[in-house]
Parts: sequence; C-alpha cells; structure tokens
Amino acid sequence: MDIPHLNENSIIEIFRKNFTQKSNIFLGIKTDKGKFNDAGAIELDDNNLLVVTTDMIGSKTHFPDIGTPEQFGKKSITVNISDLAALGAKPLGLVISTGFPPNTDRDIIEKIASGMNQAAERYATCIFGGDVNKADDIIVAGTAIGITTKEKILTRNNAQVGDVLCVTGTLGDAAAGYYAWKNKLDLPKKIKDVLYPRFLEPTARIKEALILRDLDIISSSGDISDGLGWELFKTGQASNVGFKLYENLLPVNQEVIYVAKLLKKDPLDMILYYGEDFELVLTIKKEKWANFSQNMNKLDQNLKKIGEVCEIKDGNKMIRENNTEITIKNIGYDQFND
Amino acid sequence: MDIPHLNENSIIEIFRKNFTQKSNIFLGIKTDKGKFNDAGAIELDDNNLLVVTTDMIGSKTHFPDIGTPEQFGKKSITVNISDLAALGAKPLGLVISTGFPPNTDRDIIEKIASGMNQAAERYATCIFGGDVNKADDIIVAGTAIGITTKEKILTRNNAQVGDVLCVTGTLGDAAAGYYAWKNKLDLPKKIKDVLYPRFLEPTARIKEALILRDLDIISSSGDISDGLGWELFKTGQASNVGFKLYENLLPVNQEVIYVAKLLKKDPLDMILYYGEDFELVLTIKKEKWANFSQNMNKLDQNLKKIGEVCEIKDGNKMIRENNTEITIKNIGYDQFND
Repeated sequence: MDIPHLNENSIIEIFRKNFTQKSNIFLGIKTDKGKFNDAGAIELDDNNLLVVTTDMIGSKTHFPDIGTPEQFGKKSITVNISDLAALGAKPLGLVISTGFPPNTDRDIIEKIASGMNQAAERYATCIFGGDVNKADDIIVAGTAIGITTKEKILTRNNAQVGDVLCVTGTLGDAAAGYYAWKNKLDLPKKIKDVLYPRFLEPTARIKEALILRDLDIISSSGDISDGLGWELFKTGQASNVGFKLYENLLPVNQEVIYVAKLLKKDPLDMILYYGEDFELVLTIKKEKWANFSQNMNKLDQNLKKIGEVCEIKDGNKMIRENNTEITIKNIGYDQFND
Repeated sequence: MDIPHLNENSIIEIFRKNFTQKSNIFLGIKTDKGKFNDAGAIELDDNNLLVVTTDMIGSKTHFPDIGTPEQFGKKSITVNISDLAALGAKPLGLVISTGFPPNTDRDIIEKIASGMNQAAERYATCIFGGDVNKADDIIVAGTAIGITTKEKILTRNNAQVGDVLCVTGTLGDAAAGYYAWKNKLDLPKKIKDVLYPRFLEPTARIKEALILRDLDIISSSGDISDGLGWELFKTGQASNVGFKLYENLLPVNQEVIYVAKLLKKDPLDMILYYGEDFELVLTIKKEKWANFSQNMNKLDQNLKKIGEVCEIKDGNKMIRENNTEITIKNIGYDQFND
C-alpha cells in the first residue's frame, strides 16, 4: 500500500480541518485558497483589520552555514514582514519565541538579537515581546502584527482576466545563491556580491506594498516565499483565473543564468520554482494600468510587467523566447522534501 | 576565569538590551520588571490595548513521555492563554508556528491539532493562522492576541503595603506530578488522578481573571509559570514591596505532601519554586478586601488568601506553621539548568 508522505501542505490541511473558525476572524494557515494569504486577520471594528502572521526559521533547516548570526536574526524578522507586505498591512510590532542549545555562545545570541532589531528598525517597527527556550537547534518563531482596513487589504482572490501581472525586483537570485553555495561553486566575487545577499539577507517589500496599496490599483497580491509557480497557482485558485507569462519580460539577473550554466541546470527552475525571493507578485487592474505604467518610474517601485491574467481554462503558461509555450507547474519549495 | 553560564534570564537580558522601543508599544520580554508582565502591548487608540504574548513548547524539553499528543497540543495553547489571564486580557485568537521531524506520524499531528483546537474552544477563542516547518523535535510556538483597556489591564506594579495576597487553585500539584513521573514512583491511582492532570493538562485561569478584573479590586497580577517564589520576586521588584506568606494558609493538596515524603523532598520546594501551576497570584486592594471576601464564595473563584503585602525592606518571608520565619528565595524554574 502506498502511504502518502507527509509534507508541508498535508500537515497544513490537518490543522485546517481541525481548527474551528469564528465569524469575525479569518483563518490564514499558509496556502489558504481563501481570502487571506499567509496571514490571518481579526476584525477590530467595522473598518480596521488586525493582520497576524507567524513564521519559524531554524539555523539547520533554513539557514546556510556561510550566513552570519546577524543575517539569521534579520531573516527571522524579514520573512514575517514580507507576509504583511503581501497583504498591504502596516507593521505594528513583532514578538519572537526563541530556542537555543544550552551551549550557545553569548556572542552569537548578541548578534542574532542585533540583526533582529536592525531588521525591525529597517521596516519602521519594533520587537516588543518574546520567550526563551532550550532547544536542539537555534530556532526563532516570529509573529508580526499589522494593521490595515477591510477596503485596503490586499488578497489573492480578486484578479480579473485582462489584469496585468507584475513582480517587484528580480527573480531567481536567492535560488542561484543557494545552489552555488550548496554545490560549493567557486564564484567570482562580482557574482557572489549579487547573489549571496539575496539569499542570506532578503528584503521585505513592505514600503512598495504600502505605496501601491494606497493607489487602489491592485487586484491581487502575494509574496514569493515558495516560488513564483506556486504563488501563481494559489492566486489562480483563489481568483479562478489563469496566467500567461512572457519569458522575455522576466526580470532575471545575468548572474542567475551564469550559475545555471555552470551547474547545467535549467535557469527556469530557479526562477519559477525555488522561492525565497520575497518579491511581491501583483496583478494591476486592467483599467488602471495605462495611467499607472506611465507614472511607474516616478514611483521608483522597481515593478515590472511579466504577463497578464487569462481565463482559468487556459491554465498557467509561459511564452518562451522562441515563441513556444510551456505549462507552469503547480509546485513550490517544500522543506520536507529537501 | 569564571564565565557565567547562559540561562533563560541572561538571554532575555541580551534581547532587551538590543531591542529598540517605540513610545506607543510596551516591551514585554519575560521577567520584565516594568509595567507589563510576560506579554507586550500596543496602544490601539486612547483606550484600547492589544496584548500579545508568545510561548514555545517542545516535546523533548517541555513535555513528559506519558503525556498524550492531544495534551501536548492543549498545553501549547494553555501556556499562552495563561499569560493573557495574568494581564486580564480577553483572548481574540492565536497563531501557531510548528516544527515536525519529517517522519512524524500523521495520527500524532491530528491529535496535536485536535488538542490545540479543544483548548482554544475551552477558552472561547480560536486558532487563525500558522506555519509548518521541518525540525528535529515537535515544536509549537504559539502567539496569543488579546484585548483590554488601559484602565483595566492587570500589571505587576501596583501592589501596595497592606493589600491581600491571594492565589487561585492549589499549589505544587504540577511539581509533584512531575517529580513522581521523573522518579518513576508507582503511585496509587487515586493520587495519580489528582496530580497528573495538573502537569499534563494545566488550566489557564482566564475566566477567573476576567471576572476579577471587572470588579476593580486587583492591585497586581501574575501567573505561576516559573514558581510562586519567582512570581513574588518579580511583583515585589515591580511594585517596590515585599510579601509575607503564611504556611498554614497555602492551598496544598495532601497528594503533594505524600509525594514529597516518598521522595524525601521538602514539599515547599514543589510549592514555591517549581511552577507550571498556571494559577494566578493576585493582590487585592486592602480597602476592597472585606467586602470582596464576604462575597467571594458566590463568585466561585476558588481564590484563597495566602498572605499580605509588606514593606520592601522586610523582603519576601513565610511564617511557618511552627511560627518560625523563612526567607522566600528569588529563584524559579530554569530549563537551561534542568
């Protein structure tokens, strides 16, 4: 008999099935196909929504040994702020539950704490509570609290056929950095300097999210934590649409192509299915696009059109540079299979 | 050179030192000597405070092997609700960050999830978000969100000389259960039935906290997670007072004395310094005590007077049954020294 292996999504399904919902509270366990992305929300009153998201990272499973303790601390905050960004919620503060092996060096804890605080300050917020525990591995479970309104919250379920698909920043850098490190590639410093910061010290696009949210042009929103392919799958399911991407529009650094070539890998695997880019994937309402795109540079949002929303029956496709069409797979990074 | 060993409090100090505070947000890393107990708080407006607390438990460090997965799930919620109870904050909801070894049995995860939900329902709240990760141990970092007002919040820093010191429930049961299990005592079923539920399936006194809060009689409040001695030390520091306890007033089950005798331990160690009772330690304003105590039975709060607040110069003392006086030590349970 074939017993299906447990993975992140099957465990999430177990939780979703067991948890009772209350009417004024919106369940948001990861991969929610419903209204709220990776965060849950509580109605504070007729207008305001409290958005809460939690993400755990461990030094063994989520962090390469070339990363510094400061970068580990920063990442523990950034991953949570990125979830708030996806919903367009303004950070109010964070709390952290931490675990340390008893023999952890004091200096390492100092640097992790400093990294956390630097990240919180960068995103104009603060850490205001926490817990310390003994554990086998250095673990930080951060919880970010944010606020937005029912009108302004960004969700996955309003993309409409014809809307314009955009991403912030560039795609695949974190993956290329990760594979270069994992395969012990001896990269030129210039290439390392582009890729390594992207996977060791990612940025949450909260500033961009809040500016774009206030323009009232966004029909769906998510952040790329588990890969662009997976993000498009989830948004497609929630909005009942498909996506058409154009390979020649994808913002990809040459350094990603360089690493892929060295490793004889398809660069598209890094660009579409790895994740950890923490860039925003947004659809812009079709009727707002012309005006917005003309003024986009002024906003300095580093936002690029990469495709458009199509009928769900057309699925998620990408037009290659040679004009052939490929199907974008519904897969994403799963640490249980790594 | 003597390098001081890291423990829970020294790690907390590292975090406190590194974290920048914002003026409308109150830092609440555990053992805070200031206004807020183990939770942090955010001003939502002129009146309302959002209270946030986080607590991690691991199946290896925080849970005995005779506990069921359901009880582990319940405890992960209860420890967080207990922190809200200490502040008199009404639970709005919880999020959970979880870690599982890849070979974890599906049935165990089902039972943990069911236990979490049972506990959330018991305290009239729900779990509305979370995260799933690969880890070496089964870990749950829960975060509870609660709400109260600036006027109603219970803190540690308002105990006044002459106020009456009270606790809910009984003291030392969790410790006695723990030591009986750790020392493989073959206890009669009747005794096990009293002690084991207290350390495997503790209760958060949220119902009691909210009723008492609304009576406006409480001058300080905390929950016994790390021992009564440690709780009195922290409250004494925050309120600038001492405490005088009476041994003959302490609510202690005979089963605790029985286990202490079998193990040739001083029962006071279990009663004062172990913790995990999750009972509330409250001081009642002296001018409110007479009226309140006459009506206490009607409230069915199971609240007992155990002593009174005295001058800080008198320290924390206990009058023994033989009328001698002992000093209550400023120590509590520290998992890093276990």
